[in-house]
Amino acid sequence: MTRISGGVCAAKGFTANGIHCGIRKNRTKRDLALIYSQTRAACAGVYTQNLVKGAPIAVTKAHISDGFAQAIICNSGNANTCNFDGVEIAEGMGAIAANKLGIDPRDVVVASTGVIGLPMSLEPIQNGIDELAAGLSTEGSGFAAEGIMTTDTRKKEVAVEFELDGKTCRIGGIAKGSGMIHPNMATMLVFITTDAAISPTMLQKALSGDIRDSFNLLSIDGDTSTNDMVIVLANGLAGNREISTGGEDFEAFRQALSQVTVSLCRMIAGDGEGATKLLECSVSGAADEITAKTVSKSIICSSLLKAAMFGADANWGRVLCAIGYSGAKTDVNKIDVCFKSAKGEILVCKDGHGVDFSEEKAKEILLEDEIDIIINLNSGEASAKAWGCDLTYDYVKINGDYRT
Amino acid sequence: MTRISGGVCAAKGFTANGIHCGIRKNRTKRDLALIYSQTRAACAGVYTQNLVKGAPIAVTKAHISDGFAQAIICNSGNANTCNFDGVEIAEGMGAIAANKLGIDPRDVVVASTGVIGLPMSLEPIQNGIDELAAGLSTEGSGFAAEGIMTTDTRKKEVAVEFELDGKTCRIGGIAKGSGMIHPNMATMLVFITTDAAISPTMLQKALSGDIRDSFNLLSIDGDTSTNDMVIVLANGLAGNREISTGGEDFEAFRQALSQVTVSLCRMIAGDGEGATKLLECSVSGAADEITAKTVSKSIICSSLLKAAMFGADANWGRVLCAIGYSGAKTDVNKIDVCFKSAKGEILVCKDGHGVDFSEEKAKEILLEDEIDIIINLNSGEASAKAWGCDLTYDYVKINGDYRT
Repeated sequence: MTRISGGVCAAKGFTANGIHCGIRKNRTKRDLALIYSQTRAACAGVYTQNLVKGAPIAVTKAHISDGFAQAIICNSGNANTCNFDGVEIAEGMGAIAANKLGIDPRDVVVASTGVIGLPMSLEPIQNGIDELAAGLSTEGSGFAAEGIMTTDTRKKEVAVEFELDGKTCRIGGIAKGSGMIHPNMATMLVFITTDAAISPTMLQKALSGDIRDSFNLLSIDGDTSTNDMVIVLANGLAGNREISTGGEDFEAFRQALSQVTVSLCRMIAGDGEGATKLLECSVSGAADEITAKTVSKSIICSSLLKAAMFGADANWGRVLCAIGYSGAKTDVNKIDVCFKSAKGEILVCKDGHGVDFSEEKAKEILLEDEIDIIINLNSGEASAKAWGCDLTYDYVKINGDYRT
Repeated sequence: MTRISGGVCAAKGFTANGIHCGIRKNRTKRDLALIYSQTRAACAGVYTQNLVKGAPIAVTKAHISDGFAQAIICNSGNANTCNFDGVEIAEGMGAIAANKLGIDPRDVVVASTGVIGLPMSLEPIQNGIDELAAGLSTEGSGFAAEGIMTTDTRKKEVAVEFELDGKTCRIGGIAKGSGMIHPNMATMLVFITTDAAISPTMLQKALSGDIRDSFNLLSIDGDTSTNDMVIVLANGLAGNREISTGGEDFEAFRQALSQVTVSLCRMIAGDGEGATKLLECSVSGAADEITAKTVSKSIICSSLLKAAMFGADANWGRVLCAIGYSGAKTDVNKIDVCFKSAKGEILVCKDGHGVDFSEEKAKEILLEDEIDIIINLNSGEASAKAWGCDLTYDYVKINGDYRT
C-alpha cells in the first residue's frame, strides 16, 4: 500500500471543488464543497447517534437507501439543525446540485456543519452552484476539504493506492473535525472515495466495521455532534472484479480503508479545537478488545490528563484515575504506563505504582507535538488505540464565543 | 428548618481543628484536619467507584464496618494513592490520632486528598498532632474546612437546625471539591456531623439515598476521583428518640441532610477549578426520574456548553446537542430551554427549535455568577437538578501544571 496525493480525487473518475458562496460572512473562507463521480457509485454511510440530528442526516439516509450515489454537496457555517424548515432546505441543496450536474436528486448526499439553530437560506447555494460545478476538477480535493472546515486550522486529506485482483485501486478521503467531536457509532464529516468495485452491502459492512477501530476511538471534547456522518463512494472504475463477499479482496479493501480512516482520525485529533498536541493512547495486554478500547478512550477523554499534556506535566496519576473510572474491569496493580514522543520514551508507572523517573526527561518528551501514551494492562492479549488532543486556553477561547 | 453557623461543630459534642503540619510546602496553607465527637457516633459512608482507590478508602471502610466512629483525620497535599505503603501510612495516620485522643484506632475515619502517586511520610502528622488536638474547639469548623482544601479557593461549610421528636437537632458539614469531580455513586471529600440520634443502618440508608439527588448530580470536569468519600457522624446528643426505622422522623432527618448536601454541592460547583459561574440545570416534564437526571447531568458535563457559559454566549444548540447524546429517550421536538439568573429569564428554544430572542438580554442574564439552565421536556411529571460550573482559561492553567 502506498500513500499518494489527491485526497478525494485520487480515485479514478472523481472530481471536486470548494468555493465561498456567502453562507459565511468571511469572504476568505470557502463554505461550499462538491464531490462528483463520473458514474453512479456504490455508497455507504454511518451517522451520529445523537437524538438531535441535523436535517441533512435524514435526507442523506433516504437518498442513499438504495445503496448508490453520485455526488456530495456540503456547506459549512450553518449546521441546518433544529430549524423548522431543515428538511426542505436540505432537499433543496440536493436538488440544486442534481439539477446542475444533470443527475437524479436521490443520488446526492447532503451534509451541513456549523452553528445549530440558525435559519438557513438556499440563496447563496443557488447563486454559487455555477461557479462550484464549473470548477470541478481532479485537482479540487483541497478546495473541497477547505469548504467543509469550521474551526479546523488545517484541511484534512489523505489517499492510498493498493491492489485488488491485480488491478491498482485508490481510496482517499477528506474530513472536518475540530469541535463537538466524540463520535458514537458514527462521526464528524468524512467523505471517502474509491475506484474499487465493491457492492453496496460489502461497502457498508467494511465501513461499519472500520469505524469501531477508527472514528469511534477519537474524541476532542466529549460532545457527540448532531451532524456527524461518514460517507464512502465506490465507483468501480479501477476495473477490479466487484467485491461482493468476504475473502482476500474484502480484507485488502478493509486494510486500505483503515489506512485512510486512521490517518484522518490522527489529523482530526491533532487539529482539535485549540489543540497543540496530538495524543495517541495505545493499550495492550487487555483481557479483551472492549476493555482495550474502553481504557484507551477513557484516557484520551480525561480533561485533567488533557490539561496535563498541554502543560507537558507527566502526571501519570491521572492516567491511572481515568483507567479506574472507565468502567473496564482490570487489575489496577498490573498497569504499566510510558510516555513516548520523538524525544524518547519514559516509564512512569509500573504495576500500578509510581517509579523513579527523570522529570526533566519526561518534560522534554512531553514538549513534543505528538505524544504516545502507552499502557500495558498485563492481563491478556488484546490491544486498541485511541486518539485525542490536549485541552488548552484556546479551546476555551474558541468555544466561549463561537457564534460571533 | 433554619440555617445556622458552625459547620461540622454546629451539632452538640463536636469539635474540630485544622493546621499546617508540613505536608504542603506552602506554610500559609493548612494541610491537616481533625473532627472529634465527645461520644462514639453512628457512622455512615459512601466512597468512589473508581477501581483505583486511595489507600484511606480501604482503611476507613474497614474501620467503620461496625457502624461507629468517633473522629475523622484528613490531610491535603497528598492523596496517598498508588503508593506501595499506602495502607500502612493510612493506618498510621489513624493510630496517631487515636493515640492522642485516647480512643480506639478503629473509631477513626482516615482520608487524604492531593497528588496521586507521591510517596507520603507520617512525620509531619506525628509532629503536628499535639497542636492539632490541643486546638480542637467548637469554633474550629472553618480551620478543618481549610485543612482539607486543595485547589479550592473558598472553604465550604454549612449547617442547619431542625426538630425531631420535639428536640432541636443540628446537622452540618464541610467539603472540598474543585477538580477531579464527577462523583459516581460517591463523591469528593465531605464530612457531615449531626447530634440527631439515628441508628447506623438508617444513617447509611439516608446517606445512600441522599447522594443520588445531590453529589451524584454534580460534575466539575468529568473525572471521578480516586479518593472520594462522604462520611456522616451522628452522636445522638440532641436527645431525640433514636431513629431506627422509616417514618416521619426519618423523613425529617433526610430533609435536613438534603439541605446540607445540596448546599455543599452548590458550593463545590461554584468553586470548581477555574470556575467563574455556578451552573444549575433544572429539568422538568421528564417521563421518569432517570431521564430527568440523565439529561440534567449531560448538560452540565458538556465542555462546549461550559465554555459557552464562560463566554456568556446563549448557544442553546449545545444544550439540545447534550440532551440528544445523553442516552435518555425523549422527544427532541418537545424541548423548551430557558436561561435564568438574577437579571431575569429568557426563552431561547421552544419545541426543539430556536425562537427569536434578544441576544443583548441573554448576554446580560448570562454575565451573572449563578446561571439556571431550565429545561422542560414536556413529556411527563418527573424532574431533577444537577450542578456544575463553566470551563475557563484558569481550569486549563490550574491543571496544566498541577504537581509543581
